[in-house]
Amino acid sequence: MTPTFALDLFGVAVFAVSGALAAGRKKMDLFGVLVLAVATAVGGGTLRDLVLGATPVFWVRQPAYLIVATLAALTTVVLARRSRPWPSMLPIADALGLATFTVLGTKHALVAGVEPTVAAVMGVMTGVVGGMIRDVLAGEIPLVLRREIYATASLAGAVLMVGLTVAGTPTASLWAGFTLVLALRLAAIRWRLSLPTFIHSS
Amino acid sequence: MTPTFALDLFGVAVFAVSGALAAGRKKMDLFGVLVLAVATAVGGGTLRDLVLGATPVFWVRQPAYLIVATLAALTTVVLARRSRPWPSMLPIADALGLATFTVLGTKHALVAGVEPTVAAVMGVMTGVVGGMIRDVLAGEIPLVLRREIYATASLAGAVLMVGLTVAGTPTASLWAGFTLVLALRLAAIRWRLSLPTFIHSS
Amino acid sequence: MTPTFALDLFGVAVFAVSGALAAGRKKMDLFGVLVLAVATAVGGGTLRDLVLGATPVFWVRQPAYLIVATLAALTTVVLARRSRPWPSMLPIADALGLATFTVLGTKHALVAGVEPTVAAVMGVMTGVVGGMIRDVLAGEIPLVLRREIYATASLAGAVLMVGLTVAGTPTASLWAGFTLVLALRLAAIRWRLSLPTFIHSS
Repeated sequence: MTPTFALDLFGVAVFAVSGALAAGRKKMDLFGVLVLAVATAVGGGTLRDLVLGATPVFWVRQPAYLIVATLAALTTVVLARRSRPWPSMLPIADALGLATFTVLGTKHALVAGVEPTVAAVMGVMTGVVGGMIRDVLAGEIPLVLRREIYATASLAGAVLMVGLTVAGTPTASLWAGFTLVLALRLAAIRWRLSLPTFIHSS
Repeated sequence: MTPTFALDLFGVAVFAVSGALAAGRKKMDLFGVLVLAVATAVGGGTLRDLVLGATPVFWVRQPAYLIVATLAALTTVVLARRSRPWPSMLPIADALGLATFTVLGTKHALVAGVEPTVAAVMGVMTGVVGGMIRDVLAGEIPLVLRREIYATASLAGAVLMVGLTVAGTPTASLWAGFTLVLALRLAAIRWRLSLPTFIHSS
Repeated sequence: MTPTFALDLFGVAVFAVSGALAAGRKKMDLFGVLVLAVATAVGGGTLRDLVLGATPVFWVRQPAYLIVATLAALTTVVLARRSRPWPSMLPIADALGLATFTVLGTKHALVAGVEPTVAAVMGVMTGVVGGMIRDVLAGEIPLVLRREIYATASLAGAVLMVGLTVAGTPTASLWAGFTLVLALRLAAIRWRLSLPTFIHSS
């Protein structure tokens, strides 16, 4: 198992946890929970593969992704029935997924020969889309549209990763990008950091 | 006309009816109704084809799908102006579409050589996505996320169909899967059946 | 730069402006504004390319689109901080984008050899999807689902364009279709024109 594949499965698992927690808040039944968890877990990578033309998409080629997403969602359901989940668990699982898929989306795009600037955008897209699908389906305002630093964290990590890769250190770039996204998001959650809003009164 | 093509057109028609009824509840104008009806009718199959890499997607290759969806939506509008639609008509049309596209999505995936477990997931995806698009666009909570048995019905039918196909009875499997999804959904609508919810209080 | 490419960049720019204005109303931060603006700007063309199988999609092949969308969004933010945007600016930017992508979506489909009726539907899809994404993400009812003439305007322009192209005047058809969509939408905004709704009371 390559480090990239292991990281990919990790991202799928944490996003599945975030989807299952969001479904739990909406009092969905067990299979509804699974639908929301799996859609959250594979949504970003599916759009990435479609946009690059890498079809059939990753989870059709490799069933391990669906199995891991299902197990992560079921584990979440079982544990959440025993003890009340910690309220920050959903945004923290989401932050781990965001960091993972931002750097993996950027990496896939770079490997496919996409231009560096476009690769950074594809990283952000891969990172944020799973959570967008989760929040829209659950009838919530997507996290990415709220005031806390979110797209900013993803973009900062993608740009750092692209810069380090172009500078010639591809392996370090993955972990540097991951760490930057995660640190910015966790700091934003912990201290409610935000950029100035773009306010107008129309 | 093959039985599969006929069933495909039937699924498109009933989902178009459900989309037109949802649009009518929102007091949309005639062409808004058509947009919602067609998006509901072709949404699931479009995502299925994209994920498999079967492009151009089915309705671009075969205009009959758009024609049938449009006629079904127009007929719904005309009939609904004459007499008030029966309140359960939308969920029943949706149930027929869910059953149809669950089995056809599973079949397409199996024919494309996808692994059985993944084929079942693709069946559920094909079955539920059209209705999700309809409900999200109409500003409603998607049926699949409510407490009644929905994703469960789709998954049960897809798994039954995959099992029977692997066991060697592909034609019977299509109708067995269809009947199981429809029976479970109609029973859920009629007696408000539901699985236990995954409740937590965070 | 071909006229089609110039028109394409124009459509991306005006839809980015509409996305940035929608984000501003929701008090999003700067990078949230960019995410919503770029998703609005490239959403319709991305779905068009995916459905036709023209991957990697246009903005992956040609970074100018992302650059123009970003610059348009940033300019909107800067100008909106100086003076309050005119309330109709969002629907007018949206109308320009709708007209542009309706005719370009139709043209791309015709060039790809798609049947005329399907090409008109692909034009409407390309025209309306960017705005749908913007409105759903911003938690608003999509403009296309409201009572004002919207899908009707797009469909009228797409049908006119297909008719003129089949009749043998492809260049004039682009501008005729564009003008018809824009005129119908602006008239609908100015005088609140609407078609009769499809009302029923279930």
